[in-house]
Amino acid sequence: MSRTFFFVSDGTAITSETLGHALLAQFPQIKFKQVRIPFVGDEDAALEAVKQINAANKTDKASPIVINTIVDKEISSVIHSSEGIVLDLFATFQDTLEQALGVKPQPTIGRTFGIKDFARYEERMEATNFALSHDDGESIEFEQADLILVGVSRSGKTPTCLYMALHYGVKAANYPLTEDDLDEMRLPVFLKRYKRKIVGLMIEPGRLAQIRETRKPNSRYASLRQCHKEVDLAESLLRTEGIAVFQTTHCSIEEISSRVLSELGLQREMF
Amino acid sequence: MSRTFFFVSDGTAITSETLGHALLAQFPQIKFKQVRIPFVGDEDAALEAVKQINAANKTDKASPIVINTIVDKEISSVIHSSEGIVLDLFATFQDTLEQALGVKPQPTIGRTFGIKDFARYEERMEATNFALSHDDGESIEFEQADLILVGVSRSGKTPTCLYMALHYGVKAANYPLTEDDLDEMRLPVFLKRYKRKIVGLMIEPGRLAQIRETRKPNSRYASLRQCHKEVDLAESLLRTEGIAVFQTTHCSIEEISSRVLSELGLQREMF
Repeated sequence: MSRTFFFVSDGTAITSETLGHALLAQFPQIKFKQVRIPFVGDEDAALEAVKQINAANKTDKASPIVINTIVDKEISSVIHSSEGIVLDLFATFQDTLEQALGVKPQPTIGRTFGIKDFARYEERMEATNFALSHDDGESIEFEQADLILVGVSRSGKTPTCLYMALHYGVKAANYPLTEDDLDEMRLPVFLKRYKRKIVGLMIEPGRLAQIRETRKPNSRYASLRQCHKEVDLAESLLRTEGIAVFQTTHCSIEEISSRVLSELGLQREMF
Repeated sequence: MSRTFFFVSDGTAITSETLGHALLAQFPQIKFKQVRIPFVGDEDAALEAVKQINAANKTDKASPIVINTIVDKEISSVIHSSEGIVLDLFATFQDTLEQALGVKPQPTIGRTFGIKDFARYEERMEATNFALSHDDGESIEFEQADLILVGVSRSGKTPTCLYMALHYGVKAANYPLTEDDLDEMRLPVFLKRYKRKIVGLMIEPGRLAQIRETRKPNSRYASLRQCHKEVDLAESLLRTEGIAVFQTTHCSIEEISSRVLSELGLQREMF
């Protein structure tokens, strides 16, 4: 039996889908079809969504699950008239929140992921540019960085830096340990002064070899022997320098980012 | 009066914070302090969280709001013993879902943002590398791209491509319109064949000048006159070519990404 999940929203549907994925993850035994319906801004769009939901009901011969994050009550009620089982974010929590805060909500459609604060949004773009332009390890602007990720080539530094920039507006620089660093078993002098904001990323040699192999097939760089050597040396170096280290092999960039920010006590609001 | 919002989770706290932001956005009149407490994986960690929540209650002289996405009922009950007003994702929706699906949940701690599917995760990393290496407009690998963003320099193409890669595993290439393209009022020949996967990004000239000014102060490139000219020409060119265009000036990268994916009918599951 196949079941369909709908993520219905007056905005990007990111909240709806995030919520849905958290709930889905608790039912790994079921295979879901997932349909995103963003920007449902009026009743016509809602009626279109209802058509899709009802069609899925017919096809699946089972009620679709609908995660609804539409703010407007009128538009939302159209979704509730569908044949789906509707889980409703605002209808569920807003009253509790209104009571707790003692003020009325000021419903704004699709603003969760809109630009609310222009200056803060600039920080985000600046951080992203920073991550992009400080990805070679050759920059000397480590001073400006909120944090510096250190590790061997292909240990996950770049995507993690980009993620942290895009999601937390954090300026994350990235320094790939060189063979020289590893031979001398120490961080380069220009990095030492920033030790308090350095975090190490570590990866299993087998996995590293796999990743490198897709980049440079049959190279020394991608050989298991070379990967083992680099990882072992990097691990010793970072331990010697007293730098916190995170294993990335089985972690998503969300998990690595969240752990790194916690480690350094960076409490930036998420975008 | 200041109020504190806690995002408490056994994983990254991304679901909790996303949910919280959606609810917060409905009360723009209140200034909230926000505290993220991720990786609450046992009762000790939960007790630590409770201490923080209760301390905020004392400081604020008002109940903190707690968005709780801890899966385990025992650990979760510790959070519920705090002085905060606890909005609970799983306690609220899981029973409805269990009934609807007719199966028991298999609670897994902190897995929403874990790596669930290795092959799919690879796609994400590949897409991110693709976005990084196809950011110069000089690559000829447009064939492999799921979509191509076209626009003048600094119209928002790069961060949008990165966002789509990281969040939807979409291979997004990026082609900056050159002065030659604009003078000849047409897309370069090598792009024409990919028209069905091209989307244009447009930006207000005043905003563009501002952004460019921070990159190259007092340059012709950043002058309002030049920005006006490029934007006008780009608009005509894209209209002539019949390419869909999105305004980025007042849109976040989440909004642009969601609209672009909708436009092209790309229904990729979100990471």
